[in-house]
Amino acid sequence: MTKTFLVIYPDGIHVGSGNQPRRTRLFQRIWLLLMLCVVSVPLRPVRCVFGESDQSVSQYMIVTTGRELLVGAYADAHTHFLTRKLRPLGLDCVGSMSVDDKQADIQAALRFSTGKAPLVIVTGGLGPTHNDITRQAISRFTKIPLHEDDNLLRILEHRFKVSRDQLGSNLRRQAQIPGQGTHLKNAHGTAAGLVFEYDQSVIVVLPGPPRELRPMVRDELIPFLQQRFGVRLPGPTLTLRFVGIGQSRIVKMLKEHAELTPNMIQSSHFERGRVDFTFALPENTPRFRSQLQELKQLVIRHLGDYVYAVGDTSLEEHIVSMFESQGQTLAIVEAGTGGLVTAGLSEVDQAREVLSGTFVAPTVGKLRRMLSISEEAWKACTSKSQELELLATTAVGTNGSQCVLVVGEARQDASGFQYLEMATKLPRARVVVQRVHLGGSGSFDRDRLVTRILDGLWRHWREISPEEKGEAK
Amino acid sequence: MTKTFLVIYPDGIHVGSGNQPRRTRLFQRIWLLLMLCVVSVPLRPVRCVFGESDQSVSQYMIVTTGRELLVGAYADAHTHFLTRKLRPLGLDCVGSMSVDDKQADIQAALRFSTGKAPLVIVTGGLGPTHNDITRQAISRFTKIPLHEDDNLLRILEHRFKVSRDQLGSNLRRQAQIPGQGTHLKNAHGTAAGLVFEYDQSVIVVLPGPPRELRPMVRDELIPFLQQRFGVRLPGPTLTLRFVGIGQSRIVKMLKEHAELTPNMIQSSHFERGRVDFTFALPENTPRFRSQLQELKQLVIRHLGDYVYAVGDTSLEEHIVSMFESQGQTLAIVEAGTGGLVTAGLSEVDQAREVLSGTFVAPTVGKLRRMLSISEEAWKACTSKSQELELLATTAVGTNGSQCVLVVGEARQDASGFQYLEMATKLPRARVVVQRVHLGGSGSFDRDRLVTRILDGLWRHWREISPEEKGEAK
Repeated sequence: MTKTFLVIYPDGIHVGSGNQPRRTRLFQRIWLLLMLCVVSVPLRPVRCVFGESDQSVSQYMIVTTGRELLVGAYADAHTHFLTRKLRPLGLDCVGSMSVDDKQADIQAALRFSTGKAPLVIVTGGLGPTHNDITRQAISRFTKIPLHEDDNLLRILEHRFKVSRDQLGSNLRRQAQIPGQGTHLKNAHGTAAGLVFEYDQSVIVVLPGPPRELRPMVRDELIPFLQQRFGVRLPGPTLTLRFVGIGQSRIVKMLKEHAELTPNMIQSSHFERGRVDFTFALPENTPRFRSQLQELKQLVIRHLGDYVYAVGDTSLEEHIVSMFESQGQTLAIVEAGTGGLVTAGLSEVDQAREVLSGTFVAPTVGKLRRMLSISEEAWKACTSKSQELELLATTAVGTNGSQCVLVVGEARQDASGFQYLEMATKLPRARVVVQRVHLGGSGSFDRDRLVTRILDGLWRHWREISPEEKGEAK
Repeated sequence: MTKTFLVIYPDGIHVGSGNQPRRTRLFQRIWLLLMLCVVSVPLRPVRCVFGESDQSVSQYMIVTTGRELLVGAYADAHTHFLTRKLRPLGLDCVGSMSVDDKQADIQAALRFSTGKAPLVIVTGGLGPTHNDITRQAISRFTKIPLHEDDNLLRILEHRFKVSRDQLGSNLRRQAQIPGQGTHLKNAHGTAAGLVFEYDQSVIVVLPGPPRELRPMVRDELIPFLQQRFGVRLPGPTLTLRFVGIGQSRIVKMLKEHAELTPNMIQSSHFERGRVDFTFALPENTPRFRSQLQELKQLVIRHLGDYVYAVGDTSLEEHIVSMFESQGQTLAIVEAGTGGLVTAGLSEVDQAREVLSGTFVAPTVGKLRRMLSISEEAWKACTSKSQELELLATTAVGTNGSQCVLVVGEARQDASGFQYLEMATKLPRARVVVQRVHLGGSGSFDRDRLVTRILDGLWRHWREISPEEKGEAK
């Protein structure tokens, strides 16, 4: 079994996992003894966390480096990721900067950032190319020299299957760590994360590739911050996911009915017509857990009709699992959404068990032919809604499905209002036709349209009796 | 007909479109006369554009404001948009900052940014809520007072159908413009863009909502920059879009074979396994146009196999139009991609004319039943490839289609290599089965998988003779 361990070296603290080498354990014992006298200094919280006001929450700055961020090649995704991950810890991002990978630019950003917050998280520029100068730039700015770490050198030797003397200087550079600070293990690449202990500030550098940065934040940075700043690990959190309701109505309800204590950190996220609210409390105590439990019940009492999930479950996952839990499968017939509803649902892990088969075509007329509905039966329909009903009842039985979702074509009424109709057929229930508003034709609105259709399917599902869902089966 | 007009007021230049009111024309004549003496001052280029080196290109900073950017609610999308739009004009972004909507934070960002570049573009905080303080913060920082603009007040009166005295102060604030500078028309909202002429710098503020900001950049900001900084309107550009090739191989070819002159601005963009290269020259002269023409021919000579489009056409648009131009339609049968190929193609405008119908299911066995293939015929297949061939030949005729794309299930070979097979059937040609590498299961890799499948379809299409494509039809 691997264990998490904490090594206090003369030059800093290293948190890692796995079995410690014997030498490391010896070092640890000697240094632990020496460090006992000063342990209160490196572990001092820079500011008190979870106080009564914004001021007392630990603040940090982000500096993302890389010319590609400034020439339109990539958008910065690190700021969004870091702020979402660190906020439940009570860490408050007070600004983010993107700069070119030039010595002067990185140093100017560090000057600004260290003046603004006691913790600066820098990303990018740790790799082996000639543009990767962040390590050097921070060393110059902080006047903290770099030295080679024996362990990291060995990892490079192993990785590139050559001895250290044969490593190119650009590769070998990746074994350099600051003389004052520590480093963070990179489980998915060769460049370790670095921590510079500078004056009153801590500067952390993380590798640029998201697949290296993201696990490092979770497995190395957060434990380090806990150790170094006294930042508490996330206490209990409550995430409520809403659909079919605007953010402002949720905020209004909370203001009117909920008593949110100042130690509760609240954040919200809105995307594709869906709203998430997350509430975090500082410590995992029975009192705090029951406080969140009460808040959850209050929200569900007032807005339960719009809460599709408590926790991480996506709307697609929720829909798939609601069918799976009843042993039902779903056939889909899509015109106006061109396959987008199916594509979204099929990303869910258990979708294989729930999605039985989908027919997609640009018009309902073409869908009729794919489902082998006779022209005669089709002509007997006196409205567009009846056509959808016929498609729905015909699609019953597709690979054995008793449930069908039909999405009609986009249409416009006399007043210019754009909409489409959807039909849902659930076991032993009549077909229900609903009208869905169309917000436009951009991809943003296509995503919102899919949300509204899934919302409509969910609403019909909840309205029918357990017997109709097939529970009696 | 509406005309573009230029009004030089005592307090700056206003570029707009539409018919000018009579009073404006009078003002224009008087002020034009007065301004003739000093016109060289406001129109001076701050730095020479399109020189021999990076240094001489006009530089700018971006400051995006809004607490939502720092708490993980939204990612900043403005920096990516602005840098892509302004780069072909020779404008070089030297940094971007995201700050909280607090007076002190905005002012600190302005101090840093104006120290770094002669042009600062700020976004957000112009609306009517109490968080919208950017206008005031810049006024305080620059010590340039704000005053109400009569025209903007009239627009607000018209919009909210009340007289100016009845407008709430928060709404009325949106009519304030700087005493030194100008404003930019907002065709999609109530908050005008603002230009502060400060010391050696120009600070531009744009509204935060993308649907207001984006048209304002195109229709107002770029003409303003041309006027104010002598920035030339974009000269001729050449965009080449590649698929099936890595960026480094393109860069290597350009280094070896192309002579890129220093006045050529080059940018690249990579996403979902697709690479774009854009080359821009400063002026729309015959010499520059033929220089780009020669570059295009050179790239196509060396890497033409990978260039799916010259210009803005997406890979999906390219595929749809290649079928449309031959009067062909396409039926699709998807297992491993769960509808994602169809969803992507259906976003293209002419997709209605080209996509005849799609069958989606999690397994090829379920697809067999949806296509009514007998169990007997299925059992006669001796390999997975043969199953795909049978699905392809059976799907021929779906709503009259002669072309079929089949995507098989994801599989793994003995060495752990993940892949899927795809089959393509084109008119009068045999079914071709190709193997496509799978890079993982995340959404990033699903997008790349779709790219590889479309690439495979395109490659088969190019290999067959014109007769097989149905040109003889």
